[in-house]
Amino acid sequence: MQPKTKVFKYPFQYKLEQGSSLPGFELAYTTYGRLNEDASNVVWICHALTGNSDPCVWWPGLVGEGKLFNPEEHFIVCANILGSCYGSTSPLSVNPLTGSPYYHDFPLITIRDVVGTLDLLREHLGIDKIDICIGGSLGGQQVIEWGIERPEVFRKLVLIATNAIHSPWGIAFNEAQRMAIAADHSWQESDPKAGLAGLKAARSIAMLTYRHYDTYNFSQARDNFDQIDDFRASSYQQYQGEKFIKRFNAFSYWTLTKMMDSHNVGRNRNGLVNALKNVKARTLVIGISSDQLFPIREQHFLQMHIPDSTYQEIDSLYGHDGFLVDYGPLTTIVREWNE
Amino acid sequence: MQPKTKVFKYPFQYKLEQGSSLPGFELAYTTYGRLNEDASNVVWICHALTGNSDPCVWWPGLVGEGKLFNPEEHFIVCANILGSCYGSTSPLSVNPLTGSPYYHDFPLITIRDVVGTLDLLREHLGIDKIDICIGGSLGGQQVIEWGIERPEVFRKLVLIATNAIHSPWGIAFNEAQRMAIAADHSWQESDPKAGLAGLKAARSIAMLTYRHYDTYNFSQARDNFDQIDDFRASSYQQYQGEKFIKRFNAFSYWTLTKMMDSHNVGRNRNGLVNALKNVKARTLVIGISSDQLFPIREQHFLQMHIPDSTYQEIDSLYGHDGFLVDYGPLTTIVREWNE
Repeated sequence: MQPKTKVFKYPFQYKLEQGSSLPGFELAYTTYGRLNEDASNVVWICHALTGNSDPCVWWPGLVGEGKLFNPEEHFIVCANILGSCYGSTSPLSVNPLTGSPYYHDFPLITIRDVVGTLDLLREHLGIDKIDICIGGSLGGQQVIEWGIERPEVFRKLVLIATNAIHSPWGIAFNEAQRMAIAADHSWQESDPKAGLAGLKAARSIAMLTYRHYDTYNFSQARDNFDQIDDFRASSYQQYQGEKFIKRFNAFSYWTLTKMMDSHNVGRNRNGLVNALKNVKARTLVIGISSDQLFPIREQHFLQMHIPDSTYQEIDSLYGHDGFLVDYGPLTTIVREWNE
Repeated sequence: MQPKTKVFKYPFQYKLEQGSSLPGFELAYTTYGRLNEDASNVVWICHALTGNSDPCVWWPGLVGEGKLFNPEEHFIVCANILGSCYGSTSPLSVNPLTGSPYYHDFPLITIRDVVGTLDLLREHLGIDKIDICIGGSLGGQQVIEWGIERPEVFRKLVLIATNAIHSPWGIAFNEAQRMAIAADHSWQESDPKAGLAGLKAARSIAMLTYRHYDTYNFSQARDNFDQIDDFRASSYQQYQGEKFIKRFNAFSYWTLTKMMDSHNVGRNRNGLVNALKNVKARTLVIGISSDQLFPIREQHFLQMHIPDSTYQEIDSLYGHDGFLVDYGPLTTIVREWNE
């Protein structure tokens, strides 16, 4: 069950939705398993905001031997998305037109742009049909956008804790995080480490949107009831921030949060309802009861307007992060729906 | 209906809960109306995190001629709390022992310390009985702490959108905000403007905890459905941050959020239930249905353990901020309970 991680190089100009272009791009992608004879076993996994191309790393409960997605059975593909920092073209990549990294000049990338690059990778891999395309959060935003853009490619879509359009609430949370990055004066520098103190604060904000009042009450309660300072919930926020800045950079984070903000499947398609009608795949929409960032009404909306769709809900303590944590219910729900 | 704003100067050493002392303190306070003959008309208002001593400024729907609290009828008192920046002793005040402002050396202040200073002001004003003591959020934390500490002083308490102990969730949100301040390198400086870019981000985070998904959907929807960037929700966050740093400083904000974190009426009183039993006043507890920062279970808990208490709920679109916004229901609920 060795992963194969490769880089797909697209050497041509790539036009972006907002009008500018990238002079080519690269996508790091990982595959597990093999395409079967009738090419009917492709599972394409789309990662969320800070994921990478190896779903066994960030979705170990769902992907691997004996798991829902099993390399013995499926040909599993996952690509690190444009703008992210795990091997694909990102703000830290060298702009071939200038010879220097893009840094602050990296263009605005939308989910639609990402989906365009994934579709080029799909063609490059000779995949005509994807049996199941699955993703949560920003990953789910890619799945639904791709399912609308190329309806004939997909047999089944699984959309978890995601939406058809990013909410003003979600945009405001992303903006607050970017404000924390911008408050760090080093963010002005053209350096891979620019804005890391701000990014640390941004991650600690994000953690709160991923969780729930109950999650914190349960796991971050006071160590000592009578204490007056140095609370566990505080050190947890610091710890999460510290951990994150060892594996990410502020430029990619800025790019990916702006990408999330711009998510709107209805843009220039006569609105959301018209766009969602285009989905041909059988679709499973999963909501998480305690999700405060992508509340379940957003998944209800998807289910209501995607023609051949089903809604299932996970009752979770973990809020939005349930999509990464609640393996058991996720596996059961997807398995039963896929039987 | 002219407010009288004065400064109460306490020239003696004031011992703080964590062990250190302040060499005296000052409280700016505002009064409206006059004490009546039998001294039975005192309404004491406790302000929240960023309020000041004039409730006609920040609670205009509840305080003023013809309002629930009417200077023609009541003797209304409100003091700017220790640590805040509206005239009371704060981190920007000169430490008489050093001749320089406290800045980062300002001590940790708890709600219990604040209540001690308010009680000294009460004695200074010759008030034996407070008819109604009311506050929301951090203001309510003062009201309940004061009602436990000096039960004989109060006839009635009104606790709005508040709690008996600050939650890990609330502490984590405050920590994320302090991390945004600390990400601003200028926060290290001994200057009243230190950390203002961080404070701007902190305020934009706080706004989200004060509101709700629905509030943002309702008021910060996209200006143009097909837009790809520059969303209204983003500019709103920027605007709220900018507005706030014109009236506040990062030192007071740091102090007051730490104060909120440490709130725990049960500390060194054998727990919450034992502490709440001490309240003698008739108490009205008000929750706001959409409050995500002080969810209604926290007010249910207060009501469950305060002996002579009633719970009422406001169904609001505004989340925690409902206590500042929903004048109509607040007035009706308090008036009916007070008849």
